[in-house]
Amino acid sequence: MNNFTIRDASLDDTPVILQLIRELATYERAPDQVVATEEGLREVLFGQHASARVLLASEGDTPVGFAVYFFNFSTWLGRPGLYLEDLFVQPEKRGCGYGRKLLVRLAQIAHERGCGRMEWAVLNWNQPAVEFYRKLGARPLDDWSIFRLTGEGIGRLAES
Amino acid sequence: MNNFTIRDASLDDTPVILQLIRELATYERAPDQVVATEEGLREVLFGQHASARVLLASEGDTPVGFAVYFFNFSTWLGRPGLYLEDLFVQPEKRGCGYGRKLLVRLAQIAHERGCGRMEWAVLNWNQPAVEFYRKLGARPLDDWSIFRLTGEGIGRLAES
Repeated sequence: MNNFTIRDASLDDTPVILQLIRELATYERAPDQVVATEEGLREVLFGQHASARVLLASEGDTPVGFAVYFFNFSTWLGRPGLYLEDLFVQPEKRGCGYGRKLLVRLAQIAHERGCGRMEWAVLNWNQPAVEFYRKLGARPLDDWSIFRLTGEGIGRLAES
Repeated sequence: MNNFTIRDASLDDTPVILQLIRELATYERAPDQVVATEEGLREVLFGQHASARVLLASEGDTPVGFAVYFFNFSTWLGRPGLYLEDLFVQPEKRGCGYGRKLLVRLAQIAHERGCGRMEWAVLNWNQPAVEFYRKLGARPLDDWSIFRLTGEGIGRLAES
């Protein structure tokens, strides 16, 4: 396991987190869509109104992956849920069980917090990921679609 | 409009919120799946670690609908997002524009908070909702599936 560790990221890790976000976006075939900056990340992850948390996975001192998550809420269960926004292990570091270990740690966090569910979005073409998640017991919500309204659309609706 | 108003829900509204959640679940053909209690809702909506907010829509003093939402986070944008967990207007009160007014208020909140996106899940068979959302400018994320791990699965993964 080459001294594999998982720890909560701190403010000083912001440059590393941004680098990993960019590597993830490249893997997801959308490198141009990353417009996050170190300043923005510092505020959203470690600022006064921080709305997400990061687990950083390393081999020794070298970061090899990360998970970004936050707590949400299930109306029907009346309990919080854990939403996994991003999970990434560098392609050359896969097959060592690192992704699974990150998910186990997240399940422990969800369990401690009394979460009724864990959810995350998966790109349909990413079949290795789909199979990996199915093996862990997760199931796709086939009856539902996610709708999104982006910046300009929000502005238009707000003013209508 | 019969004195239609929208306001932030407060602790005293908890019984009304639970009632509306049950009406929504009945409409979504899953009334048995609501296990939320007033106590649980008070904690998640108004407690120290509150993770969601509620807008309550009324005609005069009579509640006719609600929206449950929370702020999440877009890694790629490096900015918060607004996630709409539930939107409901009582069936007999539809067609008056109340749902749209709730969404406009949410778009204003998202705009003020600097959110880069608004997202929500829609049941695929709910065609009136799908068309309503498309008219507002929202688009389904067809390339993605949501995976879910529930209580028992979380426990198993946490202990593995």
